[in-house]
Amino acid sequence: MVDQTLLPHRFETRALADCDAAALAIRDMTVRGAPLIGVTGAYGLALAAAEDASDVALTAAYAKLLATRPTAVNLRWALDRVQALLTAAAPAERAALAYGEAARIADEDVAACEAIGEAGAALIRAATEKNTGRPVNILTHCNAGWLATVDWGTALAPIYKAARAGIDLHVWVDETRPRNQGASLTAFELLNEGVPHTVIADNAGGHLMQHGMVDLCIVGADRTTRTGDVCNKIGTYLKALAAHDNGVPFFVALPSSTIDWRIDDGVAQIPIEERSPREVTHISGRAADGAVMDVLVTPDGSPARNWAFDVTPAKYVTGLITERGVCAATEAGLRELFPDFA
Amino acid sequence: MVDQTLLPHRFETRALADCDAAALAIRDMTVRGAPLIGVTGAYGLALAAAEDASDVALTAAYAKLLATRPTAVNLRWALDRVQALLTAAAPAERAALAYGEAARIADEDVAACEAIGEAGAALIRAATEKNTGRPVNILTHCNAGWLATVDWGTALAPIYKAARAGIDLHVWVDETRPRNQGASLTAFELLNEGVPHTVIADNAGGHLMQHGMVDLCIVGADRTTRTGDVCNKIGTYLKALAAHDNGVPFFVALPSSTIDWRIDDGVAQIPIEERSPREVTHISGRAADGAVMDVLVTPDGSPARNWAFDVTPAKYVTGLITERGVCAATEAGLRELFPDFA
Repeated sequence: MVDQTLLPHRFETRALADCDAAALAIRDMTVRGAPLIGVTGAYGLALAAAEDASDVALTAAYAKLLATRPTAVNLRWALDRVQALLTAAAPAERAALAYGEAARIADEDVAACEAIGEAGAALIRAATEKNTGRPVNILTHCNAGWLATVDWGTALAPIYKAARAGIDLHVWVDETRPRNQGASLTAFELLNEGVPHTVIADNAGGHLMQHGMVDLCIVGADRTTRTGDVCNKIGTYLKALAAHDNGVPFFVALPSSTIDWRIDDGVAQIPIEERSPREVTHISGRAADGAVMDVLVTPDGSPARNWAFDVTPAKYVTGLITERGVCAATEAGLRELFPDFA
Repeated sequence: MVDQTLLPHRFETRALADCDAAALAIRDMTVRGAPLIGVTGAYGLALAAAEDASDVALTAAYAKLLATRPTAVNLRWALDRVQALLTAAAPAERAALAYGEAARIADEDVAACEAIGEAGAALIRAATEKNTGRPVNILTHCNAGWLATVDWGTALAPIYKAARAGIDLHVWVDETRPRNQGASLTAFELLNEGVPHTVIADNAGGHLMQHGMVDLCIVGADRTTRTGDVCNKIGTYLKALAAHDNGVPFFVALPSSTIDWRIDDGVAQIPIEERSPREVTHISGRAADGAVMDVLVTPDGSPARNWAFDVTPAKYVTGLITERGVCAATEAGLRELFPDFA
């Protein structure tokens, strides 16, 4: 996989040797993004099965992988899918079955993201009809591009599809403190795809929306309740409020593996990961001499806290862009698209 | 003055030699904060008068100082106050008059901030009545403390007064990208005053408010319309929306010199300064070896933009904390407190 902690300054890939390496890669965010965490978890279980396919070993591996990050539900979904297959099989067959299923999850994710791209590109095309001459301005938060998935991305897939279809667009990239996934990963992706974009502080989006400089918002999700509440990178909720206040459509792009059908109240029921305060007190960047390093931005002795996600209530979400099309962020909307899941 | 660009890593003061130095200190944010910009502007005009007290020279100095930063209205207010006095006086008397008036503006600012502190501390005390045993949690954005004024501060004055009165409180400090005035200046002030505080990413406040972890917000202002719209550091508007959505009181603390009685529509009428994109693409911090340096956080080639302020419509402001007490963020509220100004 791509070591995302080195971006945008260095692009390096590395292999995961075993289940422990997969768990560590998820925990330290060498890989991140809800769909990619799911795929990495599935391969982690396959690596575990290759080493020791006993029930005891696989139960321990499942628990270790599930505990790496608590918020995104794709991880549990992918682990459950592989685990169910393995439980029903003889130990000697398990490794091969697990690799096959992990590969299927990866391939399905690519297909789902491409379908999300097509559905979302239609929304971007519709937005062009309101404008006269200027690009469609899309605001996104965090990174929900191909780095966060296996290919295409969720929030960025519609942008790539629309750009390739010749639609004149421009993306406002929230830097997404504290880990700067917007400034480092989304900007890196868009730069490499040749998509016009501008990095802004997370604080800027409300001002832009007040002044008509955002036509629509598209973000990803780490978990969505069956009622359409959306848990995504911390700060997403603030942008949804600003979009609502200014009549800007606010869309969330997600594969169905991100939907947690068990819950109906995102604020109350989704566990929000709290990460190291060091991600707030220190910022990683490239110094003038080319060295990538952390610098301290707070005074010695000032504490910090670092919640990684927040929940946007469904009432602030204009629509959910899924691999089966766009629906309202409501239980009825989701059930209509996914009668077989709900 | 204190060189604020070196904080929180080094505390150094330096003198302003002439009007050009004062203008540069305002422009490059060696001094910042609406009230302090006003005082620095007044002293800048005094320095100009000491050098050349002719009408032509003072008109040029006034224009140069006024052009340094467009958004905060205290600068124009202080310059107008000194200029009016000088125009009516003989050139030989002007330097002494200007120094006297600048000192008066500075002293009045201290008194106004202390009065704001007393009025705001009463609001914090009132908030303690709702709680049971835990500290009052106050969220603030940017720096509106003694560094931003001559002493006490605006938003932080109530916090200092309440803390000194023994009220158990805790401050959530928004880091305030892109220049990190919260993480660097507000944290520095609170640490040195012994006020319990925690630095958070700008993205976090909405999540905290959804979970009952903020009892009230207090921020400063760079300009307030006569109708109560508040222009303050970029991102203030997003916090006001979240406060509104969660029933959290949102107060703005300001001396009357921050009120622009000429205008009634903040979003349409207040000029929003756009600063260098480098403030977004690079972050200043202290490396492991103690050196303070800028590091690049975006990919080479990704553009950035950097608006410094936004406007919070009056309907999202619970009240204005002024040197004459607290009033509604409405024209009637302001006129009642300031019948002599309006």
